[in-house]
Amino acid sequence: MPPETLTPQRILEATEEVLRRFGPAKATVVDVARALGVSHGSVYRHFGSKAALREAVTDRWLDQSHTRLSAIAGAEGPAGPRLREWLGAVFAAKRRKAGEDPELFATYLVLAAENSATVERHIAVMLGQLAGIVQSGVERGEFASADPMTTARAVWDATVRFHDPAHAAEWGRAGIDAAFDEVCELILRGLRV
Amino acid sequence: MPPETLTPQRILEATEEVLRRFGPAKATVVDVARALGVSHGSVYRHFGSKAALREAVTDRWLDQSHTRLSAIAGAEGPAGPRLREWLGAVFAAKRRKAGEDPELFATYLVLAAENSATVERHIAVMLGQLAGIVQSGVERGEFASADPMTTARAVWDATVRFHDPAHAAEWGRAGIDAAFDEVCELILRGLRV
Repeated sequence: MPPETLTPQRILEATEEVLRRFGPAKATVVDVARALGVSHGSVYRHFGSKAALREAVTDRWLDQSHTRLSAIAGAEGPAGPRLREWLGAVFAAKRRKAGEDPELFATYLVLAAENSATVERHIAVMLGQLAGIVQSGVERGEFASADPMTTARAVWDATVRFHDPAHAAEWGRAGIDAAFDEVCELILRGLRV
Repeated sequence: MPPETLTPQRILEATEEVLRRFGPAKATVVDVARALGVSHGSVYRHFGSKAALREAVTDRWLDQSHTRLSAIAGAEGPAGPRLREWLGAVFAAKRRKAGEDPELFATYLVLAAENSATVERHIAVMLGQLAGIVQSGVERGEFASADPMTTARAVWDATVRFHDPAHAAEWGRAGIDAAFDEVCELILRGLRV
């Protein structure tokens, strides 16, 4: 049986497993190559450096929910419920990542801190989707906004407690869902014409 | 000249100075007594334990701006501008504490983490003032709110980026004031009838 082809996807999966096992401080490209049964040169042919590999794995982790969120943002129908659904999906995705595997979450926080450009790209994608919903709300006569991107930023900032990892410890507390509902309701009232 | 009377106020000032000098991990009651030129027994007559002393100094630090904020909250006139002024004063006070003396700020974050009941009392006072402004807005026919305390909590949560120490590193960034203005504007629109 020929060995499985070495793809970027397989390397990134092995990298996550190695990070989970050794922690972000100790994990090396040699560990990743060993987990895959290949030489570290083979890994370097796909990712030119350890830094590039760590950036790519961070990117993959941050982008996990982009497709689903993008589908919600681009759906038809009233913008109000769509914005509410999108904010709920962002909160749910962050919460799932933090709750299901807290150690891996902590690892990715370390990686995110060392790849701030990657995080900024991720936030730009989020803001772009939000601005799209606001824009469609303006076009449908539902929302008032002089500049959808500025409004998107305000909505993102006003919901920071429900998506910024700095608040992850609060996401399991009693009353957090009610608190989220109230903030969303306040924002939606603020957007309506 | 008789020695200055040992008051709780003097002890708390000396405690802050000792915390600043030795850090929260090393500062002791003996250090505080030495700084005041008294026996540690004299300190214990005012604060029964090291924990009680640390709690009292945390309380003093958290309460620093309560009087000014309380004056804004209880002022006459339209509730909208008053809410805006109150939120701005909270942000300004937090920012000043974080910016003027970052080491002392870090020290107080350690103390706050070990005195969560004190922090909760502080937040309860903040929410009470906020709810008072919302209530007066409802009475004046400016704001819509089924329950001022629930609304106060939503406003507090929606502005978390501008008062939670977890975001202190963002408070010096370019654009933070504009971001704060936009969030306040969104909230105020959401409150208006």
